[in-house]
This record gives sequence, C-alpha cells and structure tokens, in this order.
Amino acid sequence: MTLRLRVYGLFEMQGPNLRAARLVNTLLMLLILVNVLAVILESVEAYHRQYREWFWQLEVFSVTLFTIEYLLRAWIAVDNPAYGRGWRGRVRYVLSPMALIDLLAILPFFLSMFFAIDTRILRVLRLLRVFKLTRHFAVLEVLGTVLRNEARTLISAIAVMIILVILSSAGIYAIERADQPDAFGSIPRAMWWATVTLTTVGYGDVVPQTLGGRLLGVVITVLGVGMAALPAGIIASGFTSELARRREAYEIRAKQLLRDGEITSLDRRELIKARNELGLDRTDAQQVLRRVAMEAEATSEPDAVVVCPRCGMRFDAH
Amino acid sequence: MTLRLRVYGLFEMQGPNLRAARLVNTLLMLLILVNVLAVILESVEAYHRQYREWFWQLEVFSVTLFTIEYLLRAWIAVDNPAYGRGWRGRVRYVLSPMALIDLLAILPFFLSMFFAIDTRILRVLRLLRVFKLTRHFAVLEVLGTVLRNEARTLISAIAVMIILVILSSAGIYAIERADQPDAFGSIPRAMWWATVTLTTVGYGDVVPQTLGGRLLGVVITVLGVGMAALPAGIIASGFTSELARRREAYEIRAKQLLRDGEITSLDRRELIKARNELGLDRTDAQQVLRRVAMEAEATSEPDAVVVCPRCGMRFDAH
Amino acid sequence: MTLRLRVYGLFEMQGPNLRAARLVNTLLMLLILVNVLAVILESVEAYHRQYREWFWQLEVFSVTLFTIEYLLRAWIAVDNPAYGRGWRGRVRYVLSPMALIDLLAILPFFLSMFFAIDTRILRVLRLLRVFKLTRHFAVLEVLGTVLRNEARTLISAIAVMIILVILSSAGIYAIERADQPDAFGSIPRAMWWATVTLTTVGYGDVVPQTLGGRLLGVVITVLGVGMAALPAGIIASGFTSELARRREAYEIRAKQLLRDGEITSLDRRELIKARNELGLDRTDAQQVLRRVAMEAEATSEPDAVVVCPRCGMRFDAH
Amino acid sequence: MTLRLRVYGLFEMQGPNLRAARLVNTLLMLLILVNVLAVILESVEAYHRQYREWFWQLEVFSVTLFTIEYLLRAWIAVDNPAYGRGWRGRVRYVLSPMALIDLLAILPFFLSMFFAIDTRILRVLRLLRVFKLTRHFAVLEVLGTVLRNEARTLISAIAVMIILVILSSAGIYAIERADQPDAFGSIPRAMWWATVTLTTVGYGDVVPQTLGGRLLGVVITVLGVGMAALPAGIIASGFTSELARRREAYEIRAKQLLRDGEITSLDRRELIKARNELGLDRTDAQQVLRRVAMEAEATSEPDAVVVCPRCGMRFDAH
Repeated sequence: MTLRLRVYGLFEMQGPNLRAARLVNTLLMLLILVNVLAVILESVEAYHRQYREWFWQLEVFSVTLFTIEYLLRAWIAVDNPAYGRGWRGRVRYVLSPMALIDLLAILPFFLSMFFAIDTRILRVLRLLRVFKLTRHFAVLEVLGTVLRNEARTLISAIAVMIILVILSSAGIYAIERADQPDAFGSIPRAMWWATVTLTTVGYGDVVPQTLGGRLLGVVITVLGVGMAALPAGIIASGFTSELARRREAYEIRAKQLLRDGEITSLDRRELIKARNELGLDRTDAQQVLRRVAMEAEATSEPDAVVVCPRCGMRFDAH
Repeated sequence: MTLRLRVYGLFEMQGPNLRAARLVNTLLMLLILVNVLAVILESVEAYHRQYREWFWQLEVFSVTLFTIEYLLRAWIAVDNPAYGRGWRGRVRYVLSPMALIDLLAILPFFLSMFFAIDTRILRVLRLLRVFKLTRHFAVLEVLGTVLRNEARTLISAIAVMIILVILSSAGIYAIERADQPDAFGSIPRAMWWATVTLTTVGYGDVVPQTLGGRLLGVVITVLGVGMAALPAGIIASGFTSELARRREAYEIRAKQLLRDGEITSLDRRELIKARNELGLDRTDAQQVLRRVAMEAEATSEPDAVVVCPRCGMRFDAH
Repeated sequence: MTLRLRVYGLFEMQGPNLRAARLVNTLLMLLILVNVLAVILESVEAYHRQYREWFWQLEVFSVTLFTIEYLLRAWIAVDNPAYGRGWRGRVRYVLSPMALIDLLAILPFFLSMFFAIDTRILRVLRLLRVFKLTRHFAVLEVLGTVLRNEARTLISAIAVMIILVILSSAGIYAIERADQPDAFGSIPRAMWWATVTLTTVGYGDVVPQTLGGRLLGVVITVLGVGMAALPAGIIASGFTSELARRREAYEIRAKQLLRDGEITSLDRRELIKARNELGLDRTDAQQVLRRVAMEAEATSEPDAVVVCPRCGMRFDAH
Repeated sequence: MTLRLRVYGLFEMQGPNLRAARLVNTLLMLLILVNVLAVILESVEAYHRQYREWFWQLEVFSVTLFTIEYLLRAWIAVDNPAYGRGWRGRVRYVLSPMALIDLLAILPFFLSMFFAIDTRILRVLRLLRVFKLTRHFAVLEVLGTVLRNEARTLISAIAVMIILVILSSAGIYAIERADQPDAFGSIPRAMWWATVTLTTVGYGDVVPQTLGGRLLGVVITVLGVGMAALPAGIIASGFTSELARRREAYEIRAKQLLRDGEITSLDRRELIKARNELGLDRTDAQQVLRRVAMEAEATSEPDAVVVCPRCGMRFDAH
C-alpha cells in the first residue's frame, strides 16, 4: 500500500487504520474550533493587547497546518473516485466547493504578506474557517439536501419578500416622509423599517406615527406574518417529502432484496447499508420492512398453490 | 408565416426564432428592473435634484416601450388559444390580470398629462410595474398555485386574526385607557398595539404598564405565537399536498404510458414533458418511475407462464 | 307546513324559500358587523359625545332583534334533529355553545338595567357579539376541526411554554434582580420579560444588562424560536393529516360507489355531495377519482377472462 | 399480595386499588404545583417578609413528603419489569432520568444544611421540581417522541444558527465598531445584537446606525426569518411523519388481526389496546379500519367462487 493511499485513508476515514483517521479528523476539527474562538476573543481589545503574541503564534501554527492539509488533500484527490485520476482529477478537486473553502482559510494570510489588508476584514475572513467544519458534520447533510431541493421555491419566496419590501417602503415614504424625514425621507431609507417589520423583527427604532402610516403598518405586519410563514411552510414540506422519499427508496430497495422470499445474511447487510446511506432511524426502517413483509405475504398467499389444468397436480407457482 | 404570428412567437417564446424571443424578454425584464431602481433612487432628494432630466427621459422612454408592448400584446392576443379569436378574444385578453397590470404601468403617465396627480402617488403607482416581472418568473408559479389553493383557509386565518385584534384592543382599552390615554384611549388606537403584538413584531413603542394590562399582554403574546403559526401551518400543508398531488399526477401519467409493458421513445418524451409541466425535479420523477416499474413487475409476475413440474404443460397461473 | 317549520327553513337555509333564508342570514350578519363597528367607534371620545343618542338607539334596536332571534331559535330547536324533540331538545339547544354565545350577546344589556355594571366592561362584553359571526362562516370549519384535533398537542406545547417561562423568569431574577429591581425584582415581575422574549415579540422595554443576564437571554431567545416553532409544526401537521384524511374518506366513498363498474347519475350526485361535505376542491377530487378508476382497471384486467377448468369455456368473471 | 406490591400499585396506577392510586398521584401533582407557586410568590419581597414562616413550613413539609416518595419509589423499583430485580434494578432506577429529577428536588435542601448556598440559587433549584410534573402528564409523550426523533436535525439547525451568529457579529463588528463601541466594540458584544436579530426577537436596544450596518442588518433579518423557519419546518415534518408512522403501525396490527376474515371480540379488544398505545384518536382509527376492510374485500372478491355459465361448475377463479 502506497503512502498516498495511507494518507487518503487517514483523511477520508477508510482503510485499516480507522483509529488514527478518527484522531486526525478530531484534531483538525478542534483546530478549527480553537481558531474561531481565537478570532472572537482577539476582537476584545483587552485580550488583544495582552495576548497579542500568542494569537500570532496560533495563527502561524494554524495556517501552517491548514496549508499542509490543503496540499495533502490536493495530492490524494486522485485516489478519490469522485474526481478521477491524474492532474485533471486534481484540478477538478481544487475547484470543488470544499477545496475552495480550504483555500479561503489560508489565502488571506499569504496575501496579507504582500498586500496591506485591513485587519478587520482579515479577521472576518479568518472566521470563514468555520465553514471547514461542514466536512466533519454528517448531520448537516439532510439539512443541506432539503435546502438544495427547495432552493427554487425559497428563492421565489425571497423574490416575493423583495417586492413587498419595495412596495411597503414606497407606501410609507408616500405617507410619512413629511412627518419623519429622517426615517422615511426616501425609499431606500424607508426600506430599513419595511424589512424590520416584514421579517417581524420589529426593533421599534422607527415607527409610523400618522394614522395613514399606522394603517399601512397594520397591513404590513400582517403580511409580515405571512412572509415569515412562507419559508417555514416550504422547509416543512421539504423535510416531509425528503423523509418520505428516503423511506420509499428504502422500501424499493427492500422489495428488490426480499423478492426471492428468503432473507440471507447478505440481504441483511445490504439493508443496513441502505438504511445508513439514507439516514433513516431504526424505527422507520423496521416499520418499512414489516409493511414490505406483510405485502409480500398478501400477494404470495393466493398464488401459493396452483393446480395444473391437465394433470391436476397441485404445486407451488413460486 | 404572418408578421403577427412572428411577433406572437417573440413574446410567448414559441416558434423558430427562440433566440430573438429570449433576447426580447430579457430586455423587457431589464427595463422593468431599471424602472424600479429609478423610482427608488429618484425618491432620494439629492439624486432627484441632480438627475431630474435623466429620470424624466427614462420615464418617457419606458412608457413609450411599455405602450408599444401593451398594444402589440393586445394585437397578438388572438393567436393565443387561451383567449380565442376575433375582437372577443382581444377584449378577454385586455381584461385579464396580466393585461391590467400592463395597463396600470402606463396609464398613470397619460392621466398625469390631463389631470394634476400628486407626484408621490404617481411614484408609488410607477412602482407597481414590478408586478410586470411575474410574467417572466416561472418560479413563482408553484408558490402562486399553493396560495390560490389555500386561499380560503388563509382568509379564515385572517378573519380569526381580525377578531383577535378587535377583542385584544377592547380588552387593553378597558384596562389601560386611564393610565395611557395616548396609546389606549380608544379601541381604534389600541388596535395598533394589538396588531403589533399579535403579529409578534413587538416594536415596544407602546407597552402595557399596569398589572392587568401585562396579564392581558402575556395572554395576547402567546396567542400571537399561535396566530403566526396558523399561516405557516396552512402553507406548509399546502406545499406538501401540492407536491404530493403533482407526484401522483406524474405517477398516473407514467402508469398510463407504461401499461403496455414497453417504453418507447415516444413514452420517454411524454414522460419528460409531463415532468416539466408538473415542475417535478429529476430525483422525484425517477423514484416515481422506479416504483411504477416495480409495481408493474409485481402484478405481471404471477401472470407469467408456469410450467407444471409433472407433465411439463405450460399455462397461465391465472 | 307549519309556521315553525317555515321559520326553521329561514334560519337554517333549508326548504323551498332559500332566497328569503339567504336574505335573513345576510341581514343578521350585517347587523353583527354594524354592532362591532359601533362599539369600536363609540370608544372614541369625540364620536361618543356627538353620536351618543344614535349609538343608544342602535343598541336598543340590535338587542331587540337579537332577543327575537334568540327566542325564535330556541322555539325552532325541536325541528333540528341534532337536539331532539320536546322541551328536552330545547334545553339541550339552550345549553349548546352557539346558543350561549347568542345569550351572551343580549344578557349584559338586560343585566345592566338591574345592576350597575361598569360601561367599560359592558362594551367589551358587547364586542363578544363578534362570535355570533362563526355561525355564518363555513370557512372556519376546517380551521376549527384542525384546532380541535390538535388540541391535546397544542395544550402540551402551552404547558412546555409555561414551564419555560417560569424557569426563565427564575433564572433572570437570580441574575439581574440587584441590577434592575424594577424589571426583575421578583419572579412574577420577571415573567413579563420572559414571556415577551420566549414568544419572540421582544418589545425591548425590559432588557438584561449584565453579562450573565445576556447569556441567559441568548439561550432564551433561541428557545423562543423553538417554542414558536412548536405550534407552527403542530398546526402544519394537523392540516396535512386532516386533508389526507378527507381525501382518503372521499376515496373510500368513491370506491364503494364505483365498485359495480358503472357510474350512474346517482353515483355522480353522491360523489359531488361527498366532495362538498368533505370540503375538497375540484382538482383534489378529480385526481382521487382518476386514481380509483386506474386501480379498478388494474385489478379487473387480469381477472377479465376466466377459463372453466371442466369445459374450457372462456368468460368474464365479473 | 405484599405491601411492596400494593405501594407499587399506588404509584404506578396498577392493580385493584385504582381509586386510591389516582388520589395519591393527584395529591403529589398538587404538591408540586403548590411548591412552584410558593417559590414564585416568595420571590416577591413583601410576601417573603410577611409569610416567611409559612413558606419555611411548606418547604419542610414538601421535602419530607418528596423524600418519602423518593425512598418508596426506590424501594418498589424492583417490581417494575423495566429495571429488573434486586439491588441492580434499584441502582438502574436510581440512575434513571426521572429518579434524578426526584433527587434534584430534595438534594439542595439537605445540602443547604451542611453548606452555605446562595438563597437565590436555592430558589431556582427548588423550581426544578416543576420537572416532576412530566411523570403525571401523558400528553407530553408525543411531543417528547417527536423532539427525540428530530433531535439530530434540530441540533444541526442550532449549529447553523451558531455559525450564523458568529459570522453576523463578526460582520457588524467590522462595520460598526467605531460608531457604536458600546454595542459592537468586540465580537462577543456584537453577538447580543446578532442573536436578538437572527431569532427575530428584535428588542431594539441596539440597532445598526451606519448604511453598511443597516445593509448587513437587512440581510441578517431576512436570514433570521429563514432560521426561525428551520425548527418550525423540522417539527412540522416530525409531527406529520410520527402520526403517519403510528397510523401505519395501527394498520399493520389491524391487518394481522383481521387476516382470518372474522372480527372476534378478542380482535376488538386488541384493536382498542393498539389504538390507545399509539395515541390515535377515534376518527383516525376508524378510517384506517374502513380502508383495511375495503382492501381485504377487494383482494378476497376475485377469489370468490365463480360459476361457469355453460356447465355450471363452481370453482375458484384463482
């Protein structure tokens, strides 16, 4: 086994050395968390002054490790069947979202050596390392699938929201611009109030004062409840149908495996594999299997015994 | 091919000249966006003073184009089977919602030439051009269908909300009118607080101060959470059942097409057409097809030819 | 036909005189709306002083009509099979929720003649007439069914909310009572902030100031999002399953009617009746029917031709 | 019957003395409620001073009873098949969540005799007795099941929220730290505003003032609506699928019981038992049964005896 395959096993948690792989991944995760915490704490003036040196050392240490990780991952990408062999596979990997996130985690550091970048912006960019965590959280997968499936509908909800914000701000601008020029003196200014109201956040720093403004406000707050309901409804529907789809996919797989009537140990392993891939919990899977078994029995029962019309022999059709 | 049919193809994105049609539609969409942006920016006093002339020229240019678009669409309406031939079809088109939106986009301009209209109101009316966008966004279709399907239930939720607002304002008026006459001196005044609270916006500009008022406030804020839950629940249910309905419609179509057991290239095209019309994504459609195929197999299997193990006669088990 | 049956037809919209019945019901509905509007307007001091006499006359007029309505409804209750014949049926009707709402609409007026009741309380009680509207809005039926079905779960959500409010107020009381004695000086006082925060209303009149208070505040606002999600989720699930239940009930009815294979005009009428009773829209109903028809075809097809094992005659089993 | 079994029957509402058991449980529930109320009232300075003695006596009385309850429950745990016999069963019970809650209700009292504990913390700890109520509310079971099923997804939603809070605070810190050092002077400080905004609570005590800050604020409030939608969607989907799972489990049970074609009184009792265990309401259960009956009929029908129209032979069509 080559060194590259061993490294691949370490990063992708495959192969014989699963324990070391888990350790490597846990340490990488901890490093990301420590980085995020450091950026947060460094923003406190007092800590920044006192522990300046330590923060700098942590930064150099982290960037070194993250750079090594980045290079190693680019090196082993060719072993991942998802990207393909050779330099082509490597280029494909380097342009993948996860690799770009990894690059973003180290690039600002190297750029700041050559260009003068505002430290405030540098700090926010450093925080983007938090996205490196997504690789280590399998839990986020279902959430991501649902959001991707519903992306088109969610975008249309946002489009409706933008249209409502524009019309609301134009309305309040027409009504209240004379009374509260600071808050509603122009449509862009009025947009602050319109957004804060339509999202039902309602800071209360700007509030309509005239009768007309309040009447419009009443309409907009009620629309705001409806607006807040749209994404909730879309996401609820997305989760419901995603779960249904996964249960059905499991059912189809189970029916294929159990068609021959016997449950071999291979079938059992295949079913567990399917359950894990689809992220179903045990109760869900068991109920699907019970239903499949029941239906199989129901359809097989009447066909059980066939009588040959010529010789009258009774035998099993299956 | 007549000129009218060619124009029809351009606007409705049909016929051979699909490229030109796409260009025309994109330009119209851009013109609407530029118009909306212009109205927003013109409301800023500084821009208004400096670029007055430019805004006016854009307005004249836009109204000219929108008027031509309006007349052309009325002219070609007879080629659209949805409205029917002759002047009757044209009248039917002119009274359709989309045509009225188009009219509303240009009418204020012409009216303002003959009547003195407040510029503030003119501006808001000009913003209504944003609705012309709905023609160009197919994504909004599912959202629209769901809202239309659930309209009756959503209206009943709004009716419940209005009743709750009335009772809440009467309650707080009875309790706090002496303590805060400005905010709760009459039921209509108290409605501002009641709406802002029931929608969970909660500006905080008006807040009950007495013990009784706060007790009522606690009840109303909790009811507010319930009120906000109603539309979310209704819309979630609407999306779920609309998706289920579309998947089932696709399944019914697939079963009809695959009844004869063979999948011809015509079937394939019909399935893709059905999938697009129903707005299903590829994963959804594939799973439906897999299930249909499996069920077809399940029912066809027992009808397969059975061979009698004794006499070797081949016959149908059914 | 007796007079009582005629009156029954008028109120319950049955029998031959449907037009007059609709008129009576519309007028009663308008009278309720006028009453609600009057109470709202009378609370404005200026209107109250100027139109005192008119408001009083409207009140006397309305109470007279509502009293006649109440007595008539009690009189005809025996014709309603839901309550049963004789004085028993009348007593059962008088104790039904709708009758109690009707009584509540007139009782305060008569009580105020004998006892001195605070006019503020009288006014709120008069507003309860708005509940008389529920009789005239069939749309509220589905909403009511869902809320009734989910009542147990919604109550458990409210119980969780109360427990969270108690624990949150105790927590903030322990942390901030010294810093803000006015807002957090005792647990009951702290409950105002806890409720306003957990419901995500967030007035901002009371806000934790210390680090500990804000940390608790962060936890509570996040819990508040979860709390607001509970009723939304419960109601969404309620609507989804109620719709599914109604579609299935329609499917069962359709299967029963179409079992014999023919669709008679009687079947058609029965299906329309079932659709109206279940409040399904046309699209829903059509899809259910299409599926039923398809399944009927699928099951009948293989059984179509049976071969007699003795004489070999081929015939239809059905 | 031993004394221990009798006590077991009293606490677990089993055995012959159901009435006494209900009384014991109701009294225990009342004692918990009185305790919670007492802690809330004692936090009011005036009541605390006046009724100090009474509160102390109630505390001693309650702790005595709760201690007896705790010891009795540990004693009878061996009769509960869930924990197993002997001291092992007892240890297993003592470490169960419900037993720990019971311990937490009395431990602070005894600890405060030996150690000096801040009375404020003692009070909050005493409030935790409210969790003892969960044993007495069966309604909370479905809610608990749904939350447990969806725990992984809910946690991933919280993880997304934490990431968004961190990025939002870093963003507003970068933009507004110079303008509002008190509110946005460091990332930890800015987190207060970020959390309050992303949860759509929106106190309004801290609000961005600059153009950049407001632009970021607009994005964050919109994201906040999405964040609030996530748990609502997850919980809605959880309730929907939990109900579907329970209805299906009931259907599977019903099919098993009704397979033989006859409904015996034993079947009936089993069905009622299954319905209660699954927490289905009567309407749900009836519809499931009606469907099962219909399907049973549909599959049995073709197997009915067919009579050949020519030779009159009676035979099974299958």
